[in-house]
Order: sequence, then C-alpha cells, then structure tokens
Amino acid sequence: MTAKGIKRISSPAEMTRYVVEQKQEGKTVGYVPTMGSLHEGHLSLFKKARENSDCVIASVFVNPTQFGERDDYINYPKNIERDAGLAESAGVDALFIPEESAIYPNGSDITVKVHSKTDVLCGKSRPGHFDGVATVLIKLFNIVKPDTAYFGMKDAQQVAIVTSLVRSFHFPVKLVACPIVREADGLAKSSRNVRLSVEERKEAPELFKGLQAGLRGAKLGETRFDQLIATVKAYYAKHLTLGKIDYVDVLNYPDLRRSGTLLSGRFIIACAVRYQNARLIDNITSDTELFTTVSEADESC
Amino acid sequence: MTAKGIKRISSPAEMTRYVVEQKQEGKTVGYVPTMGSLHEGHLSLFKKARENSDCVIASVFVNPTQFGERDDYINYPKNIERDAGLAESAGVDALFIPEESAIYPNGSDITVKVHSKTDVLCGKSRPGHFDGVATVLIKLFNIVKPDTAYFGMKDAQQVAIVTSLVRSFHFPVKLVACPIVREADGLAKSSRNVRLSVEERKEAPELFKGLQAGLRGAKLGETRFDQLIATVKAYYAKHLTLGKIDYVDVLNYPDLRRSGTLLSGRFIIACAVRYQNARLIDNITSDTELFTTVSEADESC
Repeated sequence: MTAKGIKRISSPAEMTRYVVEQKQEGKTVGYVPTMGSLHEGHLSLFKKARENSDCVIASVFVNPTQFGERDDYINYPKNIERDAGLAESAGVDALFIPEESAIYPNGSDITVKVHSKTDVLCGKSRPGHFDGVATVLIKLFNIVKPDTAYFGMKDAQQVAIVTSLVRSFHFPVKLVACPIVREADGLAKSSRNVRLSVEERKEAPELFKGLQAGLRGAKLGETRFDQLIATVKAYYAKHLTLGKIDYVDVLNYPDLRRSGTLLSGRFIIACAVRYQNARLIDNITSDTELFTTVSEADESC
Repeated sequence: MTAKGIKRISSPAEMTRYVVEQKQEGKTVGYVPTMGSLHEGHLSLFKKARENSDCVIASVFVNPTQFGERDDYINYPKNIERDAGLAESAGVDALFIPEESAIYPNGSDITVKVHSKTDVLCGKSRPGHFDGVATVLIKLFNIVKPDTAYFGMKDAQQVAIVTSLVRSFHFPVKLVACPIVREADGLAKSSRNVRLSVEERKEAPELFKGLQAGLRGAKLGETRFDQLIATVKAYYAKHLTLGKIDYVDVLNYPDLRRSGTLLSGRFIIACAVRYQNARLIDNITSDTELFTTVSEADESC
C-alpha cells in the first residue's frame, strides 16, 4: 500500500508552519498522536477527527521515554508505508513523522513527572511510562497546536492523565475521548491480538464479558468497590483457563481513586490479563450502555 | 500610586481571550513574567517589550513551587498597587495577576524536572527551584501565548534554563535576554539592595569590579577556568571585608558547563556574596564590552 496523497512532514518547524497556514485560512485542526502500528482503533480516532475538523493531523512517533526497556523501544514495530496508507484512507491530511533527535533536541534535559493517577492499573507496573507520555505530549501539542486532540479509551488511564495535563498546564486544546473499538465478539481491538494462539483468541472475548458482569452488578445496585472487583474476578475464575489475571480494578473516573468504599459518580472497571505472548487490557466505564451491541459501539467513534 | 489605565486580569481564561483578541487584530504580543516587587530591572524588560511589541503583557505571580521554604513564599513582599503603577508607567498594557489556585488547579499533580544546568551557581543551593520555574512557565506561556518573552540576565542561570525549556518543549516563543541594569557605581539593581547597611552598600560595587577583573584577565589571554576564578577570588579577598563569598564560578554559557580546562566560546563569570541581611548575585558574560560605561549598559535594554 502506498499513500501518495497524504502530506508527510518530519521537521517540527515545518509542521508548525503547516498548521499556522491552515489556521490562517480559518481551518480548525484536529490531531491524533500515535506510535504507528495503526489498527482500527486508531482509524476510529482519525475518522472522528475528520468529522469534527477542517484539517486532520496525525503523528507517528515511537516515543523512547515512555518505554521501560530500551529493547521494547527498539523492537517496537514500524511500518510507515502501511501506516501512511491507512491514515490517508481514514481522511488524515498530514502525517507528522519526526526523528527522535527532532523531538528531543536536548535529549531528556527537562522532563515531566506525573505524581497522580499513576500508581494504579497499568501505571503500577510501568514506572515512568506516563512521565514519558506527558513529556512528549507537551512537545507535540506545542508543535501541532491542535484545536482538538483525540485519544482512545482503550488506554483509559492515559486519557485520565492527559486530561490532567491539559488542565494543569492550561493547554489550549480540547480533548475528545473515543470509545474502544471491538471485534464482533467483543474483544477490544489491539495490535497485540495477533500474538494470541487460536485457543487464546477464542477465550479473549471473556475479558469484556467479565467487565460487563461487573457493570451489570453495579447497575443492579451493588455499590461496594471490593464486591464489584470480586464479581469480575469470579467471572474470570470461571471463564479464563489460559489467561492469568494481572489486575482487575474498579475506580472513580477520571480521578482514578476510590472515594470511600462505595461507588458514586462516574467509574471505570478495568482489567489486564496475560497470555503466552500478549498482555491484553480492557475496560468499561459506568456511562457505557450495558446492552449496546458491538456494532453500534464500533460506529460511535 | 494608583494605576487606572492598565488592564488587570486574574482569570487564565480571560487572559487567553484577551491575547487571542490582540492577535486577531494582527498585534504582536510581548510578555514579561515577574513575581512582583518591581524594580528598575523589571522596568527595563517592560520597556524593551514595549519597543518590540504591539501589546505588552506582564504577570505578577509569586510562584509557590520555586521556593524551598513555605515561609519564604509567604513572606515574599507583595504590593500590587505599586507594581501596577510601575508597570503602567513603563508601558505595560495588561497585568495578569492570577490566584495560586487558578495557576495550579490540580495542585502539583504534574510537575517539570530540570536535569541539566541546575547543579551549578545558585541552583546548587536551591534544589527544586528551577523545577518550579519551568513548571510555572509552561503554564504561563500556554495562557499568555506570547510571541516574545523577556528575561533579565541578572538571573543568567534562569535565562539559560528557560532557553533549554523553550527549545526542548518546542514552545513557539522567542526569548530576549536583557542586560543587567546597574546603579551608577556598578552595583546590579536588586530589591535586596535596600537590606544592605550603609557600609555594605559602599562595598557592594566591588562585586561587579571583581567580575570585570576576571573578564579583563580573559581578554588579556588567560584561558584557564581555574585561573580566572582565582583572579576574581583574589580581587574579592583584597576588596571585600564585610561580604562573604558564596561562590565564584566561570562556565560556558548558556550550557553552564566547562568544555575541558580551557575557555572557548561564550562564557559567564558569576558570583554570589552574602551580607548580613542580603545575599547578592552578579555576573558578566564574555560578550560584555569591558569598558562599557554603566549609563550605556543601562540604556541598552
């Protein structure tokens, strides 16, 4: 697949010039930051940006500072031709593909530290990950200057932290959190799903069903965090034979804390499950319609 | 002194609206961030901004996160009426005077860490100070969105670190570093000078003379960092009887390191000296004309 129509920009200064030109023409700018390896989750963000904005910019930048291990960074899959084709087909106008040295011209001389919302869910096992995310997003927001930026709820913790980042640092950007895109059987789309064995793939939709069981419990009146976690874990104990639970948690959202022992306000039920060659994550928020069909969810973002 | 003409804004959202309006009218925006207690050093920045920009914004915000001790923060002098009058007289159009809770709406949930240029000069004795400076400047730059921001070379280390901040985080702002404003006898202007006793005040101009002695040594061909430091220290040993040297250092500027043992490129000679009730700092950079008269230096920014 080749993408001849999409504009490709590698220089931060050129990226900024392009955006400024667009804005001078009165256009609104929507932005989707990615690390490439695009899948339908990303495409849903591009499409949402396309619906809402006059100009859609996506970036493909594998950010070294959000990886714990240098090896994971080096081995992170890259296929820019495929990504450019997918981005173009989803209506992206310009693809920002900077080098590491362009984004980190002084290395990591100044970094961002996230002190809140990081010691739960995936953050607990990825120390420093969200520091790297916050650091690179300040840079990218300053270069791309979007009116609106789109993030997927697949990484709900990231959405929560980026929400704090924008508020704490007064970034003039509106965030749009897009719902998780799922396969027909409910499995959240992920580039890691291809690493599942045939048997694991058959089992994986149970992750979402377990979260739904938890949400159903809450909608039926259960208000104890611990009890809701137990409901999801009990479901997994019964339905997962290959996957090992990394965590199941229920937290208020987006503050990612528990206000006392009882649910109140918006909350999230989230899980991570390890298979042989893939660790899958999934979540559901309390404002999700429980009986929304998967196809409707697919279309909603 | 009252300042009726100057616009006062306390809300970040209103500040941003004001700036956006100015820019929509095609105006350029110059910005001087301050912590109030304005003196002629600040006024020189306002005047420089006035010369270069269509719209001049100053902020008065005593930033809690750059103080080591909460007491120093609480006791930091505040006189907003006086500051507003001085700012107006120096041509400032709008004064941004936000509350702490407006700048830190989520407290210190996300902060900035400066890893470079901090373990020398004043940074050595003020751990975390420049982290606070960098944190608040990202916020203020995002709110005020200046085309150009003005900083005084009195705090040369701050200028060096803000230069890194702007480059590392790709802030779309041009920095202008303005020369130190001095009294007729060469003493760098500072709100702390009033805390000097009559005898100390008489001695204090020796600080600048010692730095000039160092620079003269370099201009005469001395290229060893250590030897230049020794020259300044020898001058102080001879001419300071009341002040105690905190540090004298010679470093490349703005990277604040030493490239080997010999001078090359731009450098700074800096000192801090303690008197009874005031710690004074001063510096001179290698591009300073050695025999510039004080009055010329005064006018240059």
